[in-house]
Amino acid sequence: MRRTLFEPEHEQFRDSFRRFLDKEVVPHHLDWERAGIVPRELFTAAGAHGFLGISLPEEFGGGGVDDFRFNYVMHEEVQAAGVNASGLGLHLHNDTTLAYLQQLATPEQARRWFPGLISGDIITAIAMTEPGTGSDLAAVRTAAVRDGDHYVVNGSKTFITNGINADLVIVVVSTAPAAGARGLSLLAVERDTPGFDRGRNLEKIGTHAQDTAELFFNDARVPVENLLGEEGKAFGYLARNLAQERLSIATIAVAAGRAALEQTLSYVRERTAFGKPIGSFQNTRFVLAQLASELHVAQTFVDAAVVAHLDGELTAEEAAMAKLWCTDLQVRVMDECLQLHGGYGYMTEYPIARAFVDARVQRIYGGTNEIMKEIIGRSLGL
Amino acid sequence: MRRTLFEPEHEQFRDSFRRFLDKEVVPHHLDWERAGIVPRELFTAAGAHGFLGISLPEEFGGGGVDDFRFNYVMHEEVQAAGVNASGLGLHLHNDTTLAYLQQLATPEQARRWFPGLISGDIITAIAMTEPGTGSDLAAVRTAAVRDGDHYVVNGSKTFITNGINADLVIVVVSTAPAAGARGLSLLAVERDTPGFDRGRNLEKIGTHAQDTAELFFNDARVPVENLLGEEGKAFGYLARNLAQERLSIATIAVAAGRAALEQTLSYVRERTAFGKPIGSFQNTRFVLAQLASELHVAQTFVDAAVVAHLDGELTAEEAAMAKLWCTDLQVRVMDECLQLHGGYGYMTEYPIARAFVDARVQRIYGGTNEIMKEIIGRSLGL
Amino acid sequence: MRRTLFEPEHEQFRDSFRRFLDKEVVPHHLDWERAGIVPRELFTAAGAHGFLGISLPEEFGGGGVDDFRFNYVMHEEVQAAGVNASGLGLHLHNDTTLAYLQQLATPEQARRWFPGLISGDIITAIAMTEPGTGSDLAAVRTAAVRDGDHYVVNGSKTFITNGINADLVIVVVSTAPAAGARGLSLLAVERDTPGFDRGRNLEKIGTHAQDTAELFFNDARVPVENLLGEEGKAFGYLARNLAQERLSIATIAVAAGRAALEQTLSYVRERTAFGKPIGSFQNTRFVLAQLASELHVAQTFVDAAVVAHLDGELTAEEAAMAKLWCTDLQVRVMDECLQLHGGYGYMTEYPIARAFVDARVQRIYGGTNEIMKEIIGRSLGL
Amino acid sequence: MRRTLFEPEHEQFRDSFRRFLDKEVVPHHLDWERAGIVPRELFTAAGAHGFLGISLPEEFGGGGVDDFRFNYVMHEEVQAAGVNASGLGLHLHNDTTLAYLQQLATPEQARRWFPGLISGDIITAIAMTEPGTGSDLAAVRTAAVRDGDHYVVNGSKTFITNGINADLVIVVVSTAPAAGARGLSLLAVERDTPGFDRGRNLEKIGTHAQDTAELFFNDARVPVENLLGEEGKAFGYLARNLAQERLSIATIAVAAGRAALEQTLSYVRERTAFGKPIGSFQNTRFVLAQLASELHVAQTFVDAAVVAHLDGELTAEEAAMAKLWCTDLQVRVMDECLQLHGGYGYMTEYPIARAFVDARVQRIYGGTNEIMKEIIGRSLGL
Repeated sequence: MRRTLFEPEHEQFRDSFRRFLDKEVVPHHLDWERAGIVPRELFTAAGAHGFLGISLPEEFGGGGVDDFRFNYVMHEEVQAAGVNASGLGLHLHNDTTLAYLQQLATPEQARRWFPGLISGDIITAIAMTEPGTGSDLAAVRTAAVRDGDHYVVNGSKTFITNGINADLVIVVVSTAPAAGARGLSLLAVERDTPGFDRGRNLEKIGTHAQDTAELFFNDARVPVENLLGEEGKAFGYLARNLAQERLSIATIAVAAGRAALEQTLSYVRERTAFGKPIGSFQNTRFVLAQLASELHVAQTFVDAAVVAHLDGELTAEEAAMAKLWCTDLQVRVMDECLQLHGGYGYMTEYPIARAFVDARVQRIYGGTNEIMKEIIGRSLGL
Repeated sequence: MRRTLFEPEHEQFRDSFRRFLDKEVVPHHLDWERAGIVPRELFTAAGAHGFLGISLPEEFGGGGVDDFRFNYVMHEEVQAAGVNASGLGLHLHNDTTLAYLQQLATPEQARRWFPGLISGDIITAIAMTEPGTGSDLAAVRTAAVRDGDHYVVNGSKTFITNGINADLVIVVVSTAPAAGARGLSLLAVERDTPGFDRGRNLEKIGTHAQDTAELFFNDARVPVENLLGEEGKAFGYLARNLAQERLSIATIAVAAGRAALEQTLSYVRERTAFGKPIGSFQNTRFVLAQLASELHVAQTFVDAAVVAHLDGELTAEEAAMAKLWCTDLQVRVMDECLQLHGGYGYMTEYPIARAFVDARVQRIYGGTNEIMKEIIGRSLGL
Repeated sequence: MRRTLFEPEHEQFRDSFRRFLDKEVVPHHLDWERAGIVPRELFTAAGAHGFLGISLPEEFGGGGVDDFRFNYVMHEEVQAAGVNASGLGLHLHNDTTLAYLQQLATPEQARRWFPGLISGDIITAIAMTEPGTGSDLAAVRTAAVRDGDHYVVNGSKTFITNGINADLVIVVVSTAPAAGARGLSLLAVERDTPGFDRGRNLEKIGTHAQDTAELFFNDARVPVENLLGEEGKAFGYLARNLAQERLSIATIAVAAGRAALEQTLSYVRERTAFGKPIGSFQNTRFVLAQLASELHVAQTFVDAAVVAHLDGELTAEEAAMAKLWCTDLQVRVMDECLQLHGGYGYMTEYPIARAFVDARVQRIYGGTNEIMKEIIGRSLGL
Repeated sequence: MRRTLFEPEHEQFRDSFRRFLDKEVVPHHLDWERAGIVPRELFTAAGAHGFLGISLPEEFGGGGVDDFRFNYVMHEEVQAAGVNASGLGLHLHNDTTLAYLQQLATPEQARRWFPGLISGDIITAIAMTEPGTGSDLAAVRTAAVRDGDHYVVNGSKTFITNGINADLVIVVVSTAPAAGARGLSLLAVERDTPGFDRGRNLEKIGTHAQDTAELFFNDARVPVENLLGEEGKAFGYLARNLAQERLSIATIAVAAGRAALEQTLSYVRERTAFGKPIGSFQNTRFVLAQLASELHVAQTFVDAAVVAHLDGELTAEEAAMAKLWCTDLQVRVMDECLQLHGGYGYMTEYPIARAFVDARVQRIYGGTNEIMKEIIGRSLGL
C-alpha cells in the first residue's frame, strides 16, 4: 500500500527540514529539555530557512502555499529526529495560530504581524483554557470591556503553549458575558501590553523543552485594532480551526508512534537477553506486530484525513475521531515500546523515555479525548 | 471523508444483490440457522441471478470481471441484512475457491467445472486444516500416492466450510511427504469419489446456518485430471491466495461491525431506561463514539487495502494486518454492542446476538490471529 | 496461599455433590443443551440427595444450615464438570429464591411450600425484569390490585430463569403505582394461577440447557395468602437479597474461569503445532500466566467476600464489585482460552466453547455491570 | 470486608511514621525531586526515629521484630503522603538489602554493619543488573577473582537504586564463570573500596528524588571478610529474597493506587466542568467505580499475600503474580486518574502527575513483568 499523499515538492521540503533539524535542533535538544524552553533563536532560524508561515502570502515573505502536507512533513521529521518537545512550539505557530491570523487578519494587521510571524521574530500562542474551566468555552470568564480605543481585559488563562516565548497571544475573551459562547471574541495581545503578565514556566512531566505558562490580565489595555475578526464570532472561528488543530495532533501522534516503532525494532534486533536477541522472543514479535499493524492502519487513516482536509471535506467529528484514536494509540505504543527497552526505557537519554512522557499530554490538549467522544457521540444523534 | 472506492456499477450491483437477499435469504435465515445449513437451492438461486463467479470468463456464463469490489459489496449487504451465516458459503465460493480454480484450471477443467460453479450446481470448498495440525501446512499428513491414472488419497481434514454441501473440494495433499511444504499439491475432489466421505455437520457456537464438516479419505481414488496446477507447487498457490482470503475476512469484519453499530444506534435511541433513552447516557455515547471511530478508521483502511489489492500491490503482511486488526475489532464491537442491548443482546432473535457468536470464529479461521502476528513479525525482521 | 475457607464438612459435601453430577448430570448435559431445558426430574433427584434447601429448617427436610459455602461448593463442582447451564436453575433455586422465601415466608407459607422446595417438587423462579424496563425497579409496571381475597395482577415479565419449569414464581409487582419503588410488593405466584401464562422457551446464544421465558399476567388472581412479607416493602427485600445473588454470580464466574484454565492447560500441554506443544510457545505461556494470576487474585477476593458475607458484613457495593470484576474477568478468560483452542474452541462439544457463550450473560443478569458501576460510584460519593 | 491484617502496634507505628513523613519529608519532597536525590540525613533521621532495621536484632539497636507488616505500613504512608520517590531508598534498605544481610551476615559482619544500618549511617544498595544483561542472572559478567585476602572485582552494574548515596552495596559477582548461575556469589562492597566507582546520577522520567546510578569495578579489591554467605550460593539467596522484594513492590503498587484514587475522588468532587462537578459525569463515575473495584480486589489479595509471607508460605510464583498484576493495575490507575485531572494531571506539582511517572518503573524493576510471566508460566507446567 504505497502512500500517495506526498508530491516531490514535499519530499524536497522534507530533506531540507531534516537537515535543519539535524543541524539546529538535534544537538541542543537535551539542553533545551533541561532548560524547559527553546531559545527564541530557534524560531528565527526556522524563519530564515523558510519553515514558518508557508501558508502566508508571498508578499510578506511567506510560502504562499496553503497545503497542510508541509506541516505533516514537519511533524514526521520532528518525530523521526526524536525532538518532539522542541518542535511543538513551531507546530503550534504554523498549524494553529497562523491559521487564525491568516483567516481573520485585516490588511493592516497583516502588514503589522505577518512579516514577523514568517521571520520568527513574532512567536505566537493561543489562549483558550482558563484555570477552573477546562475545555468549556461557554464558561470563559476572561472579560474584555470596551473603553474608548481599547479593550480592558481581566482574567487569566492557563496551560499556554509558547506561554513564555510568545510575543503575540490570541486570547479568547468574553465581550458579552450574558451571551455565553455567542459573546466570545478574539484579541491579539502583544507582549508589552500594560496589565498583561505571564506566570512562571510550569513544570510538567514531559514535553520539557516546550514552555507552558499561565497568563494574567489585570486591566490589560488592548487596542481595538487588535480585535481579530468580529466581536462575538469567536466560537465559530474556534470551531472551524479546532479541526485542523486536532488533525495536527493526530498526525503528530502517528508520526511519533512510527518513530518509536522504528527505534524499538532497532533496539530489539540488537539487544540480547538469555542469549538471543530480544526481538526473537515471541512476545516481542507479537507486541511489535500488533503495534506495526495499528500504526499502519492509523497512518492510512490520517493520510486520508489529510487529503479530506485539503479538499475542505474533513468534518469536525472526523477530526475528533482522528485525535481520539491516534493519540490513544500513541500512548499505547509508547507504553509497549518503553517496556521492551527494560530499564533503559525509563532513562531520559533514550528517546523512547521522552516519547512516553511527551505522548501523555496529547490525550489532553486540543480538547480532552473525553470531549472528542462528546463531539462524536453528538454526531451519532446521541 | 467520502468513500471513493465504488463506481456506479458497484452500486447497481448492490441494489440488485440487496433485493436478492431480501427475497431469497432474509425470510429463511432463522430457519437455516436452526437447520445448521443452507439449502443447495440458495446457490442455484444466487447463480441464476448472476451472483456467483463474476470473476470467471463470460464464455462459461461468468461475469468476466475480476474486481474484488463486487465481493466487498456482497459482504456489506449480507452484513447489513443480518444474515452472515447464510452468506458465508457464498463468500467462500466466490472469494476463495473460485480464485484457485480460475488461476489453475486447465481448459479441460474449466469446461468441466466452470459452468456449474457459475450456475451454483457445483458448490465448492477448500480443505487445508487437519485434525491435530491446525494452520501448519508443513505438517499436512493427507497423502496422495500416484497409482496409474489416479491419486490414492488417505487422511482427513476438518473445519471445512460448505463441508456438507460441497460438490467439489480443493484438497491440500502431500504428494512428496519427504519434501514437507514443498511437496504439497492440490486435488479437486468430487462428491462421488469412491473412498471420500464426510462426517456429520459439526455443532458450533455460531455461524449456525453454515455447514462445517470433517472430510475423510480412505484410499479415495481421484483421477489425475483433477490435479490443480502442478505437483509440489501448492504452497505457492496457497500463499498467493491466502492474501485475498484474509482481505475477504477483513472486509466482512468491518461490514459486520458497521451493521452492528447501526443496529445498536437505533436500539439505544429508542429504548429507554430510568426514564430516558439509553443513548442519552454518557457511557452509551462514549462507547459508541469509540466504536464509530474505530470502524471509520477500519473502513478507511480496508477500502485502501482493497484498492491496493486491485492494483496487485497488497502484500501478505498487509493482508495479515487487515485480518488481525479488523477481526479483533469486530469481536470488540459485537461485545460492546451486545452489552448495550442488555438481556435482549443474549437472545438469538436479535441480530446482535448472532453477530456476536458469528464474529468469534473470524479471529480463528483463515489462519489464527496468532499466525497473522507471526507473519507480520517476520516482515519486521524479527 | 492456602485457601482457608472450607471446613471438612464442605469437602465431604463436595465429594458427594461431584458424584451426583457425574451420575445424574454429566451424561445428559449435551442432550439437555439441545433440548433447551433440564427435566424436572433433575430437581427431584437433587432434592432426594439433599442438594436443595440446605439453608431451610430441618423440620421441613432442609439442611438447617445457613452457610453460603455449600452453595459455593456446588458452583465450583458444576463448573469443574462443565455443566454450567444444567446447574443454573439449581443455583437460582438455592441461592436466590429460597433466600427470599426463608426470610419472608409466614409459618403457613413455610408449611405449604418448604417441603416441596426441598424435595424439588416445587421449582422456583423470581421475576423482576419487564420488557422495556430492564434493571430499573422504579419502572415496574406489573400491577397488583387488591380485590377481596385476591390480588389481580396484570403485566408481563421477561428473561425469567427457570421460566418454563417453575412452579412458584416470586413476582415483583406494584401495589401502589404512585409510590414508585416504595410501592413494590412480592407475590408468590403458583403454576396454575388463572390468568398466569408463560411464553415459549426463549432461544439464547448460550446457557442452552437453562430455560428462560416471558411470563404474562392477564387479570391473574393471586390469593392474598401468597403475599411475601409486607406490601410496599419489596424494594428493601430486593436490595438485601441482591447482594447474595451477585456474590453467587461472582463465585460462579471465578469457578468457571478456573475450570476453563485447567482445561486449557491440559489442552496446550498435549496439543502440538509446528512440531511442539502449543503450551511451549511464549505467547501461550504469557496468556495463561496472566489468566492464572488474575484468577488467583479473583479467587482470593471472592473467598474473602464469602467470609464477609457469612459474617453479615458484605456491603452492597462490595457485592457489586465482586459481580462486576469477576464476570468481566470470566468473559476475558473464556475468550483467551477459546482462542488457544483454535478451531476446536468454536465447536460446542468442547467445554470451552460452551463456557464462552455461557459466560457472556453473566455481565448482564443480576443487574448489568453498568448498574454495578452506578452502585459503586454512588458509594464513592459521586 | 474489614482488613484484619494489622494489629494495634502497627497502627501506632503508622501514626508515628506519618508524623515523621509530615515533618521530615513532605516539606522537602519537591526540592529533592528537583535535586534528583534525597539527602543522607533522611536516613539518619529515619534511623533516629526507629524506622530502619526494625527486623534486625535489638542488641544492635534494631527492632528485633521480623514482621513485614511494618514495611507495608511504611509503604502505605509514603504513598498517602505523595512522596513515593523520597521513600524508595528507605524501602529498598528496609525491605530488600537488610533481608540479605540479616540472613547471611556472620557475627563479625553483623557487628561491623548492623549498627550503621539501623542508625542510617550506612545506606545500602543491591547490584544485580548489568548493562546488556537485564534480568538474566546466568549472564552476570562482573567477575570476582580471589587474590589472597581479597577478591579482585571487574565489571559494571547499572540501574542501582541508592546508587549515589549507598555506603554498602551487595554486588552479585561471578566467582566461577564456568558454572553460570551456580557460580554466583554476593560481595558487600564498601564505599571507599579502591577500584570501585560510581557513575553520574542517571536522569529518569520519574522517581526523581531517588538516585540511580551505574557502578564500576576496575580491579576493585574487596576483602574476603565481605563475602556474604557462601561462594557459589548467590542464586539461591537471590531466589529466596526476590519474593519479598516483589511483594514489597506489589504492596507499594496497591498503596500508590489507593492514594491516587483518594486524590482523584477529592478532585472530581470539587472540580466543575460544564456547570457541574466532574464527578457527576457518568464517565467519571464509571472509571472510578472500575478502579475502586480493582483496587479493593488488589488490596484484598496483597493483604492475603502478606499473611502468607508472614507464615512462610508465599511461593515464588505467587510473589510474581502479585508483582505482575498489582503493578500493571497501578499503571492503569495512574493513567486513568491523570486523565480525569485534565491539564493539571500533566503538571508535576499535582501528586497524580508524579504518581504517573513514578509508577511506570514498577513494571520493570524487581524483574520485568515479562520475567514474572515466565516464572508463573513455568509453575503452570508450560
